[in-house]
Amino acid sequence: MKKIQIFDTTLRDGEQSPGASIAPEKKIVIARQLAKLGIDVIEPGFAVSSPGEFAAVQQIARELQNVEIAGFARAVKADIDAAVKATQDAARRRLHLFISSSDIHLNHQLRKSRDEVVRIAREMVAYGKQFVDEIEFSAMDSTRSGRDFVIQLVEAVIAEGATIINLPDTLGYALPHEMADLFHTVRREARGGDTVRYSAHCHNDLGLAVANSLAAIEAGATQIEVTVNGIGERAGNCSLEELVMAVETRKDAIRAATGINMGEIYETSRVVSRTMNFPIAYNKPIVGRNAFQHESGIHQDGLLKNRSTYEIMDPEAMGISRSMIILGKHSGSHAIKHRLEEYGVQVTDDQLKSIYDRFKEVADGQKIVTDDQLIRIAGDMTKTRPDPFALVDLQVHAGTQRARSATVTIRNNELGADQSYIAMGEGPLEAVIRAIGQAIPVAVEFEDLELHSLSTGEGANGEAVVSIIHKGKRYRGTSIHKDIILAAAEAYISACNQAMMTAGRTRAEKAARTANEVDSKALS
Amino acid sequence: MKKIQIFDTTLRDGEQSPGASIAPEKKIVIARQLAKLGIDVIEPGFAVSSPGEFAAVQQIARELQNVEIAGFARAVKADIDAAVKATQDAARRRLHLFISSSDIHLNHQLRKSRDEVVRIAREMVAYGKQFVDEIEFSAMDSTRSGRDFVIQLVEAVIAEGATIINLPDTLGYALPHEMADLFHTVRREARGGDTVRYSAHCHNDLGLAVANSLAAIEAGATQIEVTVNGIGERAGNCSLEELVMAVETRKDAIRAATGINMGEIYETSRVVSRTMNFPIAYNKPIVGRNAFQHESGIHQDGLLKNRSTYEIMDPEAMGISRSMIILGKHSGSHAIKHRLEEYGVQVTDDQLKSIYDRFKEVADGQKIVTDDQLIRIAGDMTKTRPDPFALVDLQVHAGTQRARSATVTIRNNELGADQSYIAMGEGPLEAVIRAIGQAIPVAVEFEDLELHSLSTGEGANGEAVVSIIHKGKRYRGTSIHKDIILAAAEAYISACNQAMMTAGRTRAEKAARTANEVDSKALS
Repeated sequence: MKKIQIFDTTLRDGEQSPGASIAPEKKIVIARQLAKLGIDVIEPGFAVSSPGEFAAVQQIARELQNVEIAGFARAVKADIDAAVKATQDAARRRLHLFISSSDIHLNHQLRKSRDEVVRIAREMVAYGKQFVDEIEFSAMDSTRSGRDFVIQLVEAVIAEGATIINLPDTLGYALPHEMADLFHTVRREARGGDTVRYSAHCHNDLGLAVANSLAAIEAGATQIEVTVNGIGERAGNCSLEELVMAVETRKDAIRAATGINMGEIYETSRVVSRTMNFPIAYNKPIVGRNAFQHESGIHQDGLLKNRSTYEIMDPEAMGISRSMIILGKHSGSHAIKHRLEEYGVQVTDDQLKSIYDRFKEVADGQKIVTDDQLIRIAGDMTKTRPDPFALVDLQVHAGTQRARSATVTIRNNELGADQSYIAMGEGPLEAVIRAIGQAIPVAVEFEDLELHSLSTGEGANGEAVVSIIHKGKRYRGTSIHKDIILAAAEAYISACNQAMMTAGRTRAEKAARTANEVDSKALS
Repeated sequence: MKKIQIFDTTLRDGEQSPGASIAPEKKIVIARQLAKLGIDVIEPGFAVSSPGEFAAVQQIARELQNVEIAGFARAVKADIDAAVKATQDAARRRLHLFISSSDIHLNHQLRKSRDEVVRIAREMVAYGKQFVDEIEFSAMDSTRSGRDFVIQLVEAVIAEGATIINLPDTLGYALPHEMADLFHTVRREARGGDTVRYSAHCHNDLGLAVANSLAAIEAGATQIEVTVNGIGERAGNCSLEELVMAVETRKDAIRAATGINMGEIYETSRVVSRTMNFPIAYNKPIVGRNAFQHESGIHQDGLLKNRSTYEIMDPEAMGISRSMIILGKHSGSHAIKHRLEEYGVQVTDDQLKSIYDRFKEVADGQKIVTDDQLIRIAGDMTKTRPDPFALVDLQVHAGTQRARSATVTIRNNELGADQSYIAMGEGPLEAVIRAIGQAIPVAVEFEDLELHSLSTGEGANGEAVVSIIHKGKRYRGTSIHKDIILAAAEAYISACNQAMMTAGRTRAEKAARTANEVDSKALS
């Protein structure tokens, strides 16, 4: 099977998403995860653009010695110098040079003739080749360029030593058959076209980035440029997880494979979303929270009989826990029972009936029910052991002209005592998080808080998702309430409860706890 | 050019998205907007599933006499009876029947033989045909079905009077060339295959829904089933706006057209998102807030020279105001000046410098800067006429054990007076919205509030977007603050200010105001 190299530009093209920009020094966090995912080539930034970017590229090139590093540069000496210098200490590296090939860009932006562009491209490839052997050349806007000129330009840079030819669909304009035709033609007609490797870089403006990338593979490309979660300029780049899973799921027809470690796909998506604070759409393929969620009774019925009836991929193979799949008003009592069993909670038919009735009430009011809420409902209905911590009282004062403060009263069920805590913050949420933090007797690192509106109007329900780190492990708590601050407080406490339950299970002897396992899982 | 019918299933398959469900009585709101958009066929729900659903289908069939209504039914008499009855009063209607054709579904879910499935399909099409002339038949999971069996099934239902054959890619499994091949084969090989119309219904699990729909068009389909914003089971259905704009943008190659009224695309996306409370991804093609946003300096430079350098579609033709395009830390002072000019604000070079410095400070802290904030900065720096209303003070009390209350002090700059208001609510946001509402002397309908976290950790910035309706027109205010409640208050006041300024301009004689126009626009 043909091996497809995955070239990740999350930190360069992806970082250009409005709202996805990150401080250069944080890029290393994402780069480390990309290395774990098994990316072949990482493009860590645009070194010439600022000293911070330069330092970030340099740091990534130095630390990640198992990944090839691409230095990105316009066909300009200063850019090349910066890219070459920043990637100096990489174990393996390439220089990635680009210039536009479309008449629209030549006439309106570059204001140069085709001959001038060929001359510049030639000179700059030759210049870069003095320092770096592997030269990737991109003919920007190639899908809106004259075919003859793309061929002329590609021939010229191959003659100067370019080793990888990238034909980007910069504006997400191409149709799949056009993309295939472009690659076929250039490979066949450019002199030296059979001596180099080919790459595609697709954008998703018309929703065709994955299809165009697959078309390029079919027509001989062996490298695809992608971003995690499909972030990037405008509608974004070809999404890493979609492309990789399309190749993997349909390897029977595509006859290609990537070196990606599938088990890290979900975690990578989360790291990028968290670090860049760029939310993932609920219906995003592969990594969205609905991607493996089946609401219709017909589909749920099929799944319970045999997963392959309505699933073409196994979410767990990508690191997606089935428990992240949410329940809603269309879910039947069968699905509720099944979900509770996944948490180790066994219920009698009578208990299920009362749990389901309560579930329907909640689902009607707030549209979806989180697992935390379902398990709380089950706990209430079956009277199992209580959570380690419970929120007894919360008071928040916020406003324009003073520090925001929060007072919380937390019941510690292990000690059987209530205690109150107070904290200030720049916003009421920060004050609440800090106040609750004082109640938790173990080291818990607050990691992230996401808010969503779940319904409309002034009385809208808000959903809060809090993640924390405890002993290197991540716990996620969720809650929904008309009071978004209360939802955040409950979500935080839920995450802490999960951490405490797990820690409790680890401390005590597992064997001795088997009898309680069902109870404790019911509350985790 | 070939005409492609757009069949919208937002209210049936789309409504099955977890988190997108809506009360049946709200469906009419979306259906009216779909009719305005120029949809050919609307599938309003699954009539047999509940009395509420039945009533919703009936209401839509009765009211929307310019659109064809599809009654959705399993190949079961009770379903057909309900679908037929609910769509009775439609001006034009069809019955949409489905049954699975894949062996996986037959063996594991239906537990029926191929012969039994053919018999049931025959009988049910014949049964439905007694009541309705136009019968659409869907061979569920057709892309994972034996080709020979799909042909056999299609032949059987055509013989009984099916007029439209839908070949759904139920699990988003197909590759575009397979989709094309399926349609070509069935059309050519099924007896009577040339006497019916063909439809495709694609899911986006591997990111290929649009490409597969286009492949079906190329292979003879004249109807595509879509949902607004691509909502639907799991990763969703083929997105209406992506499919329509791909056909429109590439009509040179696709040689087809839809009857969609492009100018309603953005509004339709917003109505569905708001009514179903299903957020739109920032990087969603066409309708995401980044879809026409260019952060890189290189792209912004090109755009200012000629829009076609980096734009293949005109956002304004879809009803997307350029002012919704947001600015971020990569934006240059050129882009800031340009944006201000779009609001009619002219600034000197010195003013631009101080505005830009302040803009950079804000952008560094919160990553993106909303237009409202930019215009407020410009107002501060250029000392133009103040907004009608300004938030002087806000105090919020919230907690678990009492009603949430908010006290606001609002300066009415036209009266030159401060006044305080108090309100309670089920959450602090509701209390704030109600308190501010009392300060606004004209009828303003609060429509929607969206919250987003823009950065990570306990001190995260939150973005609030408020929309209101004043005299039938919608106004949107945005703000970003570490205190999400304060951000919501500012966003609401900003929306009210815009409404007041516009109303003011309408009331007074336009001519007399030309001299002030620049000032007042600066504040709107």
